[in-house]
Amino acid sequence: MTGMKAAGQKKLMLFGGRTHPELAEQVAEQLGIEVAPTKFQDFANGEIFVRYLESVRGCDAFVLQCHADPINESMMEQLIMVDALKRASAKRITVVTPFLGYARQDKKHRGREPISARLMTDLFRTAGANRLMSVDLHTDQIQGFFDGPVDHLFALPLLADYVQSRVAGTEATIVSPDAGRVRTADRWADRMGTPLAIIHKRRDPEVANEVRVHEVVGQVRGRTCVLVDDMIDTAGTIVKAADALFEQGAEEVIAAATHGVLSGPAAERLQNSRISEVVTTNSLPVPKDRRFEKLTQLSIAPLLARAVSEVFSDGSVTSLFEG
Amino acid sequence: MTGMKAAGQKKLMLFGGRTHPELAEQVAEQLGIEVAPTKFQDFANGEIFVRYLESVRGCDAFVLQCHADPINESMMEQLIMVDALKRASAKRITVVTPFLGYARQDKKHRGREPISARLMTDLFRTAGANRLMSVDLHTDQIQGFFDGPVDHLFALPLLADYVQSRVAGTEATIVSPDAGRVRTADRWADRMGTPLAIIHKRRDPEVANEVRVHEVVGQVRGRTCVLVDDMIDTAGTIVKAADALFEQGAEEVIAAATHGVLSGPAAERLQNSRISEVVTTNSLPVPKDRRFEKLTQLSIAPLLARAVSEVFSDGSVTSLFEG
Amino acid sequence: MTGMKAAGQKKLMLFGGRTHPELAEQVAEQLGIEVAPTKFQDFANGEIFVRYLESVRGCDAFVLQCHADPINESMMEQLIMVDALKRASAKRITVVTPFLGYARQDKKHRGREPISARLMTDLFRTAGANRLMSVDLHTDQIQGFFDGPVDHLFALPLLADYVQSRVAGTEATIVSPDAGRVRTADRWADRMGTPLAIIHKRRDPEVANEVRVHEVVGQVRGRTCVLVDDMIDTAGTIVKAADALFEQGAEEVIAAATHGVLSGPAAERLQNSRISEVVTTNSLPVPKDRRFEKLTQLSIAPLLARAVSEVFSDGSVTSLFEG
Amino acid sequence: MTGMKAAGQKKLMLFGGRTHPELAEQVAEQLGIEVAPTKFQDFANGEIFVRYLESVRGCDAFVLQCHADPINESMMEQLIMVDALKRASAKRITVVTPFLGYARQDKKHRGREPISARLMTDLFRTAGANRLMSVDLHTDQIQGFFDGPVDHLFALPLLADYVQSRVAGTEATIVSPDAGRVRTADRWADRMGTPLAIIHKRRDPEVANEVRVHEVVGQVRGRTCVLVDDMIDTAGTIVKAADALFEQGAEEVIAAATHGVLSGPAAERLQNSRISEVVTTNSLPVPKDRRFEKLTQLSIAPLLARAVSEVFSDGSVTSLFEG
Amino acid sequence: MTGMKAAGQKKLMLFGGRTHPELAEQVAEQLGIEVAPTKFQDFANGEIFVRYLESVRGCDAFVLQCHADPINESMMEQLIMVDALKRASAKRITVVTPFLGYARQDKKHRGREPISARLMTDLFRTAGANRLMSVDLHTDQIQGFFDGPVDHLFALPLLADYVQSRVAGTEATIVSPDAGRVRTADRWADRMGTPLAIIHKRRDPEVANEVRVHEVVGQVRGRTCVLVDDMIDTAGTIVKAADALFEQGAEEVIAAATHGVLSGPAAERLQNSRISEVVTTNSLPVPKDRRFEKLTQLSIAPLLARAVSEVFSDGSVTSLFEG
Amino acid sequence: MTGMKAAGQKKLMLFGGRTHPELAEQVAEQLGIEVAPTKFQDFANGEIFVRYLESVRGCDAFVLQCHADPINESMMEQLIMVDALKRASAKRITVVTPFLGYARQDKKHRGREPISARLMTDLFRTAGANRLMSVDLHTDQIQGFFDGPVDHLFALPLLADYVQSRVAGTEATIVSPDAGRVRTADRWADRMGTPLAIIHKRRDPEVANEVRVHEVVGQVRGRTCVLVDDMIDTAGTIVKAADALFEQGAEEVIAAATHGVLSGPAAERLQNSRISEVVTTNSLPVPKDRRFEKLTQLSIAPLLARAVSEVFSDGSVTSLFEG
Repeated sequence: MTGMKAAGQKKLMLFGGRTHPELAEQVAEQLGIEVAPTKFQDFANGEIFVRYLESVRGCDAFVLQCHADPINESMMEQLIMVDALKRASAKRITVVTPFLGYARQDKKHRGREPISARLMTDLFRTAGANRLMSVDLHTDQIQGFFDGPVDHLFALPLLADYVQSRVAGTEATIVSPDAGRVRTADRWADRMGTPLAIIHKRRDPEVANEVRVHEVVGQVRGRTCVLVDDMIDTAGTIVKAADALFEQGAEEVIAAATHGVLSGPAAERLQNSRISEVVTTNSLPVPKDRRFEKLTQLSIAPLLARAVSEVFSDGSVTSLFEG
Repeated sequence: MTGMKAAGQKKLMLFGGRTHPELAEQVAEQLGIEVAPTKFQDFANGEIFVRYLESVRGCDAFVLQCHADPINESMMEQLIMVDALKRASAKRITVVTPFLGYARQDKKHRGREPISARLMTDLFRTAGANRLMSVDLHTDQIQGFFDGPVDHLFALPLLADYVQSRVAGTEATIVSPDAGRVRTADRWADRMGTPLAIIHKRRDPEVANEVRVHEVVGQVRGRTCVLVDDMIDTAGTIVKAADALFEQGAEEVIAAATHGVLSGPAAERLQNSRISEVVTTNSLPVPKDRRFEKLTQLSIAPLLARAVSEVFSDGSVTSLFEG
Repeated sequence: MTGMKAAGQKKLMLFGGRTHPELAEQVAEQLGIEVAPTKFQDFANGEIFVRYLESVRGCDAFVLQCHADPINESMMEQLIMVDALKRASAKRITVVTPFLGYARQDKKHRGREPISARLMTDLFRTAGANRLMSVDLHTDQIQGFFDGPVDHLFALPLLADYVQSRVAGTEATIVSPDAGRVRTADRWADRMGTPLAIIHKRRDPEVANEVRVHEVVGQVRGRTCVLVDDMIDTAGTIVKAADALFEQGAEEVIAAATHGVLSGPAAERLQNSRISEVVTTNSLPVPKDRRFEKLTQLSIAPLLARAVSEVFSDGSVTSLFEG
Repeated sequence: MTGMKAAGQKKLMLFGGRTHPELAEQVAEQLGIEVAPTKFQDFANGEIFVRYLESVRGCDAFVLQCHADPINESMMEQLIMVDALKRASAKRITVVTPFLGYARQDKKHRGREPISARLMTDLFRTAGANRLMSVDLHTDQIQGFFDGPVDHLFALPLLADYVQSRVAGTEATIVSPDAGRVRTADRWADRMGTPLAIIHKRRDPEVANEVRVHEVVGQVRGRTCVLVDDMIDTAGTIVKAADALFEQGAEEVIAAATHGVLSGPAAERLQNSRISEVVTTNSLPVPKDRRFEKLTQLSIAPLLARAVSEVFSDGSVTSLFEG
Repeated sequence: MTGMKAAGQKKLMLFGGRTHPELAEQVAEQLGIEVAPTKFQDFANGEIFVRYLESVRGCDAFVLQCHADPINESMMEQLIMVDALKRASAKRITVVTPFLGYARQDKKHRGREPISARLMTDLFRTAGANRLMSVDLHTDQIQGFFDGPVDHLFALPLLADYVQSRVAGTEATIVSPDAGRVRTADRWADRMGTPLAIIHKRRDPEVANEVRVHEVVGQVRGRTCVLVDDMIDTAGTIVKAADALFEQGAEEVIAAATHGVLSGPAAERLQNSRISEVVTTNSLPVPKDRRFEKLTQLSIAPLLARAVSEVFSDGSVTSLFEG
Repeated sequence: MTGMKAAGQKKLMLFGGRTHPELAEQVAEQLGIEVAPTKFQDFANGEIFVRYLESVRGCDAFVLQCHADPINESMMEQLIMVDALKRASAKRITVVTPFLGYARQDKKHRGREPISARLMTDLFRTAGANRLMSVDLHTDQIQGFFDGPVDHLFALPLLADYVQSRVAGTEATIVSPDAGRVRTADRWADRMGTPLAIIHKRRDPEVANEVRVHEVVGQVRGRTCVLVDDMIDTAGTIVKAADALFEQGAEEVIAAATHGVLSGPAAERLQNSRISEVVTTNSLPVPKDRRFEKLTQLSIAPLLARAVSEVFSDGSVTSLFEG
């Protein structure tokens, strides 16, 4: 016989970086598997070393890492994980990053700036990633930065269902915290069947240069306002937006966002604000010292697990968000 | 002597496709040169053939083509022009396309769609383009689609100066025709020192499914409203926005946009609307049968010529828009 | 368990562009499947939009498009179809283009010309095509332009079998319409067991500059002459060749070619010529106004279907043309 | 001062492999320079080592190697030379190979064959070649194999001028040795203002399978026949063609070809044939034991030098063959 | 039905170049298959031609070639084999080269040198190789030269087990012939549980410039010394090292190396030396005239076959060397 | 006039990351220029933002960053700097990284490990680096990891001249701290004209598993020993080596290394050791809390400046280390 035949078989393996191991474990549990055993080591000068303790040859690899503090290190760790998989003959490598680092640097505002979001997707490609999976990218165009398939997941059903039950019985309004997020708010309003309001920050023509007025467009008086965004970072915008809503007679303000970046003063600001609840997913880890009472974290793990499963089985990720 | 030395010299050459030869000639005139002589031929089955009639070896080539009707043919022609330059040893090739075709297809709205804007920038790269120059890209992120330097020019100074003089003596307001264009309108308002209004299209909660109310946010009563956008295609949005403004008591409405795509019913719609003047640049050719009395076309050629000159002389394109 | 295993499975899907939907349907029928449901849309300014209505994840995609009038648009549509498949995680993408556009521009005749055939294969590669399938490429070297596997099919068996039965009982001669096509004519003569003649166009040394004599080499008097070529475009060459054959006493002339481009005056010229029958495949659509009585179109669909099937099942395309 | 400016300068350097050092020296002499001093070394197991003895930083490098016996070694040597130049910061690298090895393998005749001509151009690209310069490529399409500029030179003026003076006063006819070379012969006939004849090899229908008749098309009786081809390898074809010409009454036969490959029995065959003179260029070295009395070698060095000079000075290579 | 499904299947095929056909046959036998039938042909001017006689479509191809004399030709042949597989739609191509040619040129010692080892891995990548398999690369870093998975096999178990039995009952010492090979020797010593010695070549401070003293570090007096290296090329180093060991009182000296390059004077030198046995694998062919009595060749075929089998079945190559 | 000519000019610009600004300033001072003004900003979540405050168009950019604590952040910052330069039309980008991060991960020790050194060079290439400049790479092979020119500088002259004067009048010996560094030590010994000693760490056959004996090879008794290495990281090896030397009667021990990584316990270990002086360059910054009395830092800035100048002026970097 000239050659040798064998039945084709495929094997899913899930790998998790060190930034948010709980999320990888939750996804694995949903899939009924275990995170692939991996040895991580930090050299004395900060260099990261990774080694997989089981054969990965021929596997369909999903490499989950949250791009969280220290963000550059977490991204470098994932790049190195991908390189090791490529060299160890993984068949296909999907970078799973619920929150993509540097996604806000998706354009040049002025000359001589980087477009770091494009750079990062290129780096993952170079390391060996064939595919990218992420949740609620900062702008949809980022899908076009990666030279390959992107599975773009939406946390809206997860968040909206929770908020829906939370505001049941009240007159709710979805509020976009600035004009740049109206499209997101539109989708919320559609799904929840509520009206929409927008906060427009504009210069006060009466006053000096940098002062801005937060103008509320739409009916908010006496209503439960749900401020929605893709992420809450330092929470400055969202807290000011809440103040503006209360000034216009809002009854209650809830904030909802996919990604709880919650940097610097965010926890304190939010806890001390008049916002009654902050709803996010666990797409990013929240270290103990940044947690606060008003924060509700919904697990994104079931969504990620379903998407991974569809990708592995050549199903349809689109179908997860239809109907 | 082992080798042979010579002083370095560089040579700028400007090439123009067939979609909008007047623009190339205007740019050449501004630069004090002539468009490089080129032979174009269409084969019987529609294939395009291009040949340059002068040596292009070592030149710094700028290839100007407007992506206009028939748009796919005009883009293919430019790709072929770039290929011929690459194979003829041009030193550097800059694709100049004031309006980039397919720029609106910059993301997947749903699954199984192309991201044609990324595809097109990749095609130009493959053909041999080293650089891209365009004016007011539909979204800023498109700069990140091209794997190389993009000179992103702004027609705002050109348009705003004209509009400024046009509305002098009146109370002007800049109006964004929908929430997605607020950032553009902001820049206009900043430059002209005028207030801003926004039109928000939203579902009427009282009425059936697809009906949308055009809600005007900001003061427009008794004022000269300037509707601003990056392009006017079929003019449906802009005409409805104008109607909404007049309903709110606007005194006069002017429309201004960089790119006058003016497809299908646009000319008739605009001419028959209550808009008093439509201001665009000549970034796209307007065939005679699509011209109409209210249309004012400002020449983008001086801007393109200055940018080409800065690129050629290693100056600063950024500086054209500062101060 | 660390990972999750599943049996490998593969799925063939056939996609068809809008230039020649009948051919795609014929191929699908031969395969016992249906063309994948696809939404096409033309924007007002001519931009094409494509969306697949079923999941294509993991499929072995064959994207059939005929590069026919309007040729640049049909090629751009196919490029966009490929891009959408790549981003939707198709496993492998084969561009099926029975007639490859721009194939005649496969070299530089003089300086500063493009090599558009190479450019086009590069564009398909960039869009995401892994493989190319075509029929009777204008020159065999074009296979080397594509950086990947090319399935090069031959229509000779299909055409020759028909012509064989058509000329049965007569003394047939295969005729090459010029010296550049002798190799094609050789293959015909081999398969049909007939003699060969060549028409050589040469300058008449007695007469002025551009006049050419059509010199017939080989025996044609009293015979049924079969003029063979890879394509018939404007039909100028073939009609002049037929005239020359009749001048040398040919009894009857039949023309056979794989690709019926039939541009411009072709239909009228052929119908009005002394050629008695023109045999082509349906590798290109013939719009109603270009059809003519003498034209016989043989369906290439069974050949394409067999080739697609062999590629999908890891069989042998070479074997289709052996024995 | 932020930066530091300096006048641009460029430097031509010529490098020569070991296959045909005389040619490199002739080219250098024409240019008024010297071949760059280079150390070559063969390791005991046949590995080649190269080192440049002078700085090549920033130079415009022309790397001349003839692809001659041992052909694979000569090509590998040139690849290694290019790699060393790339790593040593040469600014631009032009591979100069008057005869391109493997050029005849430019297509797949049947399934499962390589397209080695494409492979070789890709290898040079990978090694770091930016440009390719060659003389009379076996087929014009090979220009399209290289992903970059190709300077395609023609030896026709050189050869034809010599032959012109050689046949002065006789009735000359240009003869194509088979139907595949008619285009070459056409160019000769045009330049020399002579008639053309073609030799067509065809099966004898009267006789068994593989026997071929050499049919001469055109007037040769009593004339001086000039058989022209791009190369003479084993000389089998050309000698049989000459025999056919004499059978048809040719007065004298001269053979002319750009590349004198002259493998195996070529020298003996030609010397013993009725061909009176064999004219080639020195695009390939002819070792002493393969030289023969009837061989005339014209130097291609002036042509290569002029082309190198035009490339270096951003002149026009096309102009060398016009007028 | 829109598409057509089929069970996935995979097929291993083994291809062998002409440098060392026995090894390919041994590997095939171990795998219970036959080497794929392949036609090789040398053109008169030395160009190589390859054609596969069976369909290779969709196969998992392993292309075995030994980089041996004539080394450049053997590498070119393998590159061409890979190209033919790529174009014939092999699914995955693994270049198997037990001894990688040019591996010693893995760095620049001085300026203006090539890094030929990197170049060669790039050439294989360009030709279409997806993976590389080799044995005891000259330096481990070469794995990083190839942009893809490398299966790096170790002959140590094979060699050490043989040597172990050979030296049983004596006091053995592993000796590194110079300081650059200590790591190799360390692994030998670990596996065999023996002490280690090093030979350090240093300048004699008492004597003139280039004289070097071979200083033996470690206990060798009265012991059986096993000189170990990755390859034996001209055998100069190893023979001098043996002399130094005997000077220090070694009882017996055995030399062991993975690759028996055995160029030029190697056979004679070794046979005439005081070394009692030279142990290598058959990773390289040893032509009859280079064989000598003291040479023991162990077959590497079982190791290669096991590795190929693991790669094909998505097993673990690492596991072959653990435990 | 068709085109426009201008004299070529080139401009050197030096950019510095934030890890070690003093070094960039020293280099700039040597060059008589200033570091290009650059704005750096850290987002709240750790993302880095960079903007150049002057035009960089057409410049020959040298981007200096030391890969030091926090190493992943410093590398990411440099990648982003390169991206911004690429997009701002810098003509050529040279990454200058005196100490290359991850250089020690230049091979796979076992299966399923990354080769991070190759990954990092690929990342720089992807970001847009055309060239790489570094000092004393951990292994020479790393030059082959980068797909482009690498300027590899040596600190040996700088360090050795200082040490020479330091040990003048004593009997000095160069000592390699382990067998892997003998080549480095050889170069030192050659330059200083001193003898060489090696420390070989080996298992003690008398004692249990992991115990290693530091065996000193060569004469050290009564001598001034100079331990040389490419870097000192945690200083464990070097301190144990010094102890071994003193045990063998060394009079004094000095340690010299190009890169003072000095991680974790290094400063304390070295200060408390019997080593009398530790000599490094300032290729890496030493934060105040890691400085110690015995440390002598020599400035690498003059060497970097000379190399940058040679690269800019197309001079010779090799020449800096010859003669």
